[in-house]
Amino acid sequence: MIIARTLTQLREALDGVSESIGFVPTMGALHSGHRTLIETARNENGCVVVSIYVNPTQFLAGEDLSSYPRKEEADFKICELSGVDVLFYPQTLYGTDEVSVKAPDIRGYILEGASRPGHFDGVLTVVMKLFNSVRPTRAYFGKKDAQQLALITQMVENFGIPVAIRPQETVRESDGLALSSRNVYLNPSQRQEALKLSCALKESTKLVMGGVLSTATITEAMYAILEPLEVEYVAIVNRAFEAISEVVVGDTIVLVAARVGTTRLIDNVWM
Amino acid sequence: MIIARTLTQLREALDGVSESIGFVPTMGALHSGHRTLIETARNENGCVVVSIYVNPTQFLAGEDLSSYPRKEEADFKICELSGVDVLFYPQTLYGTDEVSVKAPDIRGYILEGASRPGHFDGVLTVVMKLFNSVRPTRAYFGKKDAQQLALITQMVENFGIPVAIRPQETVRESDGLALSSRNVYLNPSQRQEALKLSCALKESTKLVMGGVLSTATITEAMYAILEPLEVEYVAIVNRAFEAISEVVVGDTIVLVAARVGTTRLIDNVWM
Repeated sequence: MIIARTLTQLREALDGVSESIGFVPTMGALHSGHRTLIETARNENGCVVVSIYVNPTQFLAGEDLSSYPRKEEADFKICELSGVDVLFYPQTLYGTDEVSVKAPDIRGYILEGASRPGHFDGVLTVVMKLFNSVRPTRAYFGKKDAQQLALITQMVENFGIPVAIRPQETVRESDGLALSSRNVYLNPSQRQEALKLSCALKESTKLVMGGVLSTATITEAMYAILEPLEVEYVAIVNRAFEAISEVVVGDTIVLVAARVGTTRLIDNVWM
Repeated sequence: MIIARTLTQLREALDGVSESIGFVPTMGALHSGHRTLIETARNENGCVVVSIYVNPTQFLAGEDLSSYPRKEEADFKICELSGVDVLFYPQTLYGTDEVSVKAPDIRGYILEGASRPGHFDGVLTVVMKLFNSVRPTRAYFGKKDAQQLALITQMVENFGIPVAIRPQETVRESDGLALSSRNVYLNPSQRQEALKLSCALKESTKLVMGGVLSTATITEAMYAILEPLEVEYVAIVNRAFEAISEVVVGDTIVLVAARVGTTRLIDNVWM
């Protein structure tokens, strides 16, 4: 495995590569969700690139940028054992007074974007940088960050970026908790409380399978389960992230964001 | 010459191309300045692509978007005679609520960006779209739009876009007037008044050659020549577009923007 610490080293490592390049951008603190992305990239491509970069521009003031879990040694080992060809591990990707990417006026500032205004500008900016630098054939993202995935897909379409976006299923603990690097913030009782998110989503699936399609009814049932968590939003949207009044199977995403203690968790289910 | 009217047609025209691609993005109303860009692209590349697109997002409310000169037939002929391989002539490049590019906070909002706030966001957004769609080896821009050129160069660096930017000298009428598609707005007496811009710039060069390096002194002399035009700015900056107090030959640009009647003209000289 080549470890590239600068853009120049990255291009040196990739410039001879004629095979397809599978790319998994991460912020490190790798878990089984990331491992699944890497394995899929490994299966589908001749060359696999993983980036580990805790991107400062997607954190808002007061968020957990400085405390975000960093596990360099374990991450390197996971990449090595997963057959990664090139690990891109830059110190920084930004200079001063830079050109940036701006998320769409509406879709980028609802839900996660309303709770974290400017977050998606930072996400799209760093992904644009990484796509131009790695120039992957395919890029792999988890469905857990559903809105991020939708916006990156939109950016690729809006700008005609030559990469195929490959969304992958959310990986969960056996009890249903969606894997997240931020789960390490939870103490044992909070870990138990956090299950309310996946339980509420399971309930939404159960209701839809039972023929209940009204999003108002489903939302109400989910809030009842989420209590007494501090819920930021429950949203039922179509794939374009527009609010809908009735679930349409094949074109619906149910999303939830809530705080457990001080830890902010998100989860969703695609129907 | 292939005329591609959609992104799909553009990619169809280019996907087999193994030679280097030289790209000249324009808003049409082609003049000798554009012709020089196209000829240089022709000399340096196996395949030449020209785009003609009056990009709405770089015009501000109240500007000349609807009246901007459009000369489809003449433009097509110029491209054909200049040996252009692919002319990209799209109807629109935008959908609704799109991801966009944002110019740097400082450098994108001074000078032209102060007079036309948001203008460079629109320029960078469309150039990013065009670069991703055409995927050129080299792209050609005139030095007349100096700040635009600097920001596009910065965007390419900030995002690691794999294209070489090739700045070309401003082309002038024999009396010194910089060629511009907007010169058609000038009546004969305004055409004469417009010479004050290039005269003021010539004076700045003369002063520097005579050993006067103080930017305050040079600016004062230029204002005297520009009178009674409505001057928007006279600026003397380094290549990074930072204000300087003394000219450094090899790292200085002198810029002027002024109105002649209702027509806004810009010009500059690189020292």
